[in-house]
Amino acid sequence: MKTAQLEVRLVGYTIFEPPLGLDGDETRYLFTPDDMTLIDPENGTYDGQALAEFSGRACYQSWNKTNPATATNAGYLANILDHVHHSVLEHASVTFYITGVSRALTHELVRHRHFSYSQLSQRYVDSSDIAFVIPPADDMDPEALTEHTEAYDTALRLYNSKVQRKLALGYSRKAAREAARAHLPNEAETKIVVTGNYRAWMEFLIKRDNPAADAEIRRLAIEIGSQLAGHAPHVFGTAPRALWDTSAAQAEANA
Amino acid sequence: MKTAQLEVRLVGYTIFEPPLGLDGDETRYLFTPDDMTLIDPENGTYDGQALAEFSGRACYQSWNKTNPATATNAGYLANILDHVHHSVLEHASVTFYITGVSRALTHELVRHRHFSYSQLSQRYVDSSDIAFVIPPADDMDPEALTEHTEAYDTALRLYNSKVQRKLALGYSRKAAREAARAHLPNEAETKIVVTGNYRAWMEFLIKRDNPAADAEIRRLAIEIGSQLAGHAPHVFGTAPRALWDTSAAQAEANA
Amino acid sequence: MKTAQLEVRLVGYTIFEPPLGLDGDETRYLFTPDDMTLIDPENGTYDGQALAEFSGRACYQSWNKTNPATATNAGYLANILDHVHHSVLEHASVTFYITGVSRALTHELVRHRHFSYSQLSQRYVDSSDIAFVIPPADDMDPEALTEHTEAYDTALRLYNSKVQRKLALGYSRKAAREAARAHLPNEAETKIVVTGNYRAWMEFLIKRDNPAADAEIRRLAIEIGSQLAGHAPHVFGTAPRALWDTSAAQAEANA
Amino acid sequence: MKTAQLEVRLVGYTIFEPPLGLDGDETRYLFTPDDMTLIDPENGTYDGQALAEFSGRACYQSWNKTNPATATNAGYLANILDHVHHSVLEHASVTFYITGVSRALTHELVRHRHFSYSQLSQRYVDSSDIAFVIPPADDMDPEALTEHTEAYDTALRLYNSKVQRKLALGYSRKAAREAARAHLPNEAETKIVVTGNYRAWMEFLIKRDNPAADAEIRRLAIEIGSQLAGHAPHVFGTAPRALWDTSAAQAEANA
Repeated sequence: MKTAQLEVRLVGYTIFEPPLGLDGDETRYLFTPDDMTLIDPENGTYDGQALAEFSGRACYQSWNKTNPATATNAGYLANILDHVHHSVLEHASVTFYITGVSRALTHELVRHRHFSYSQLSQRYVDSSDIAFVIPPADDMDPEALTEHTEAYDTALRLYNSKVQRKLALGYSRKAAREAARAHLPNEAETKIVVTGNYRAWMEFLIKRDNPAADAEIRRLAIEIGSQLAGHAPHVFGTAPRALWDTSAAQAEANA
Repeated sequence: MKTAQLEVRLVGYTIFEPPLGLDGDETRYLFTPDDMTLIDPENGTYDGQALAEFSGRACYQSWNKTNPATATNAGYLANILDHVHHSVLEHASVTFYITGVSRALTHELVRHRHFSYSQLSQRYVDSSDIAFVIPPADDMDPEALTEHTEAYDTALRLYNSKVQRKLALGYSRKAAREAARAHLPNEAETKIVVTGNYRAWMEFLIKRDNPAADAEIRRLAIEIGSQLAGHAPHVFGTAPRALWDTSAAQAEANA
Repeated sequence: MKTAQLEVRLVGYTIFEPPLGLDGDETRYLFTPDDMTLIDPENGTYDGQALAEFSGRACYQSWNKTNPATATNAGYLANILDHVHHSVLEHASVTFYITGVSRALTHELVRHRHFSYSQLSQRYVDSSDIAFVIPPADDMDPEALTEHTEAYDTALRLYNSKVQRKLALGYSRKAAREAARAHLPNEAETKIVVTGNYRAWMEFLIKRDNPAADAEIRRLAIEIGSQLAGHAPHVFGTAPRALWDTSAAQAEANA
Repeated sequence: MKTAQLEVRLVGYTIFEPPLGLDGDETRYLFTPDDMTLIDPENGTYDGQALAEFSGRACYQSWNKTNPATATNAGYLANILDHVHHSVLEHASVTFYITGVSRALTHELVRHRHFSYSQLSQRYVDSSDIAFVIPPADDMDPEALTEHTEAYDTALRLYNSKVQRKLALGYSRKAAREAARAHLPNEAETKIVVTGNYRAWMEFLIKRDNPAADAEIRRLAIEIGSQLAGHAPHVFGTAPRALWDTSAAQAEANA
C-alpha cells in the first residue's frame, strides 16, 4: 500500500501597486501603506492586506490617516473586522496547491461556492499507482493498517483489471479509467488547486476549523489557517481572528 | 450486492401570481400570461415560464403585447433565448430529488456553483446496507458483475468492521462512520436534492448532456432535460433548446 | 411634480410536491409535511417551507419523525435555524415586484449578489413622465417639497430637451434616452423584479432592516420582512427571526 | 461646473510562486513557466498567467511539457481557450481603481455578480464639490454644455441647501447627505475599486465592449480590455481574444 501525507503549498497571492495621485499630481502616491506589508521594495509593491485597506479607504476617500488607531494597516483592518465590513477583504486572494487529501475531503471542500478549483481528474489521469490518505481516526489504530492494505490491494487490482479489459474492448483510455474509477474509494488521494479571497477563506476556516467538522478537513483547515496567519497576519493572525471566528465556542455549545 | 437505479423526481418549482394593476386600477391584472401556463385556475396561478415573461416585460414595461410574434409565452421566451437575454430565466427554479447516483457523479455535480444542494451525509447516515450504482460502461459487461460483487463485499465488510471497532473504542456513531466511509468507493449510492433556476439548469444541460461528459452524469442530464422539456417546454423543449444548446456539435468538433 | 409610493407585490414562490415512496412502494409518500403548509389540497402541493424540511431530512434520511420537538414543520425549521444549517433554506425562493423605489435604493440593492434582478431600463423606457421617490427624511419636511418640485421641473425639462435634440440629430430612441438619462437624479423612480431564496432574503433583512442602513432601503426591508413573515412564518416569523437576526442589537452597539 | 475624465488604474494582481517538487525532491520546481511571465527574477515569482497554466496542468498532472504546441504559456493558454476550459482562468485576478465614471455606469457595472466592489459612498462622503461625467454622446454637442452646467448648478445648490438644513435640524452628517443625495443625478462622478478574475473580466468585455452596450460603459470596457491585453496578453491579447469574444459580430447581427 502507498499512502500520502497532507501537503499545502501557498502558490499564488495578490499584490498591490499604489496608484499615483490624481488631478495632475503625479509626484506622490494616492496612498502608501504603513507597516510591514512592502513585499518588493524595488518595484514598490505591497501585499493583499494593503489592497484591502486601499479599497476600504476608497469608499470613504479617507486617504489622510487622521485617526492614529487606524493609521496602520493592522489597526485599519482590525477596525474593518470589528465593524464586519468584510466586503473589502474580497479584493485579495490566496491560492493553495493541496496534495495528500482524500476524495472524501474534496467532495466536501468543493461545496464551498466562493472558491475556484482545479482538481486532478480521475477520468484523465491514470490511478494505477495511486496513494491512499488514511483518515485521522486510524492514525493510531494498529488494526486499521491491515484493513487499508486489504482495501488498497482489492481496489487497485479491480481498477487495473477493469482498465485493461475496457482497453481490450476498444474503449478510449479516458472511458476505461472513467469506468474503473468506480472501484476507487473515498480514501484515494487527490490533488487540487484552490483559490479564494480573504473573505472566502475566513468562511472556510469558521466552518472547517471546527469541532463539528470532519477530522481530515479540520486538519486541512488548521494547516491553511496557520499559513494564512503568516501570510496575512492582520486578517488571520491570532488577535484579528478572534474578531471573526467564534465557531469553536459555538460548536462546543451546540455539541 | 445491492444496486440502485437512477430515479429523478421533480419535487419543487416556482409559481407565478400576476399582480393587480397599478395606479388605483385594481380591477385588472397588470399582466396575464397567454398559452397553456395556467396551473391552478381557481387561484389564478401560473408557472415559472410566465414569471420569466413577466420579469422580461418589467424591464421594458411592455405590458401591452403589441407584437404578435411575442404575444404568447412561447413566442416571448423564444425571443428572449434568441437575444441571449438569459437573466430573466433566473426568476424560476426547479428542484429535483435524485437517487440512484454514485458519489463519483455527485463529486462532479456539486462543482456547479449556481445550484443549491442537500445531500445524504455519509458521516451521519449508516451505510451498512448501502447500494452500488454500476457505471454505464459495465451495464453490458458480464464480467463486471463479479468485480462489483467482490468490491461490494470487501468494502462493506471493512466498513462494518471499522464502525464496530470504533464504537467499541468509544467513538461516537458520527465519528465511527466518518472513519469507516474511507472504504466506500465512488460507486456507492448517494441521494441529493438539487435546486436551480432555469438558467443554471441550461448551463448544466449544455455541459453534461454532452459527449465529452462522464457517462453516468450524462445519463442524469438526459433524464433531467427530458423532465424539464415537459415542465417548461418554452425554455427546454426541442425548438427553444436549439437556440441555446450547441454543445453536442461543438463537443464532437473538439473530440 | 409626480411622486410614487413604495409598493411591494409578492408575485412568485416555490411549491413542493412530495415524491412517492421508493423501492416499489408507490402507495405512500416518502414524506408528508405537517402543519399549515398545504397550499393546494386538490393537487397535494405544499409550500417552500415544506421543501426546506424535505431537503434537510434528505441529508439524514430522517423520514420518520421520531422526535416530537421537530415533528412539525415549525419545530423542524426552528431547529435548523438554531443549528445555523441555513443551506436547506436555499431550496425555496420568493419573488417580489417592487415599484415606488428610487435609483439610489436600487443601486444599493443590486449589490446583493445572491438575488436575481430584472429592472426597468432607463435606456429603453421613456422617462418623460417619470415619478420621484421622496427620501423618508423629507416626508415631514415642508421646505423639501419646493426643492423636489424644482429638481423635478429642471431634470425633466433637460431630459426632454436632450431627447428631442438627439432624435433630431438622428440618434436612435435608445441612444437618445441613454444620453438624456444623465440628468435624471437618484430620486427618479424605478421598478424591479427581485428573486431570492429564503437564505438570501435572510441576509438582506439582517443587513437592511438595520439602523445603519439607508432610510429608504430600510423601509423596503421592513415591508419585505413583514410579507415574508406572512408567507413563510416558520422562517421569517417573530420567533424564528430571533434565531438568525441579531442585527438591530449589534448595529446599535456599533453606532 | 466641474467635470471628470475616465481614469483606470491597475492596482492589484495575482502572482505565482512555483512550488518545489514533491516526494522529497526539493531541488527542482514542480513546474517552471516558459515565456515572458517572470515578474521578479530575484524572488522567482511569475504572473497570473503562469498560475492559470499551473492549475490546468494540475488537473492532468501534465508537468512534463511533451507537446511542443502547448509547451509555452502562450500556447498552453491558447489551447485552454480553444477548448473553453475557462475555469482555470479563475485562479488569477486583476483589480482596477476606476474614477471619472458616472453613477449611471456603476449602477450597470455592479450587476456583474462575479466581481468584488468597494465604491465611494454618497452617504458618507461629502458631495458638495463633486464632478460630473458627461455622457459620450454629448462630447461633441456644444449645446449640451449649457444643459450640464444648469443641471450642475441646480443639483449642487439643492444638495448643499438640503445638507445644511438637515444639519441644522439635528441630523447626523451621514443622514443629511443621505437625504440630499436624492438630488444628485446619474451623471454625478463616482469612484470604485473592482476586482475580478480573468474569467469574470472576459465576461465583462464580451458584454460591455459591445455595440449594444451603453456608450460610457463601453468606453470603460475598451480601456480595461486594452490594459488587460498588456497585463495578460496570452488571455486578453488580440489573438487569444478572438477565441472567446464573438460579441461584436453577434451584436451587430442582432442590431
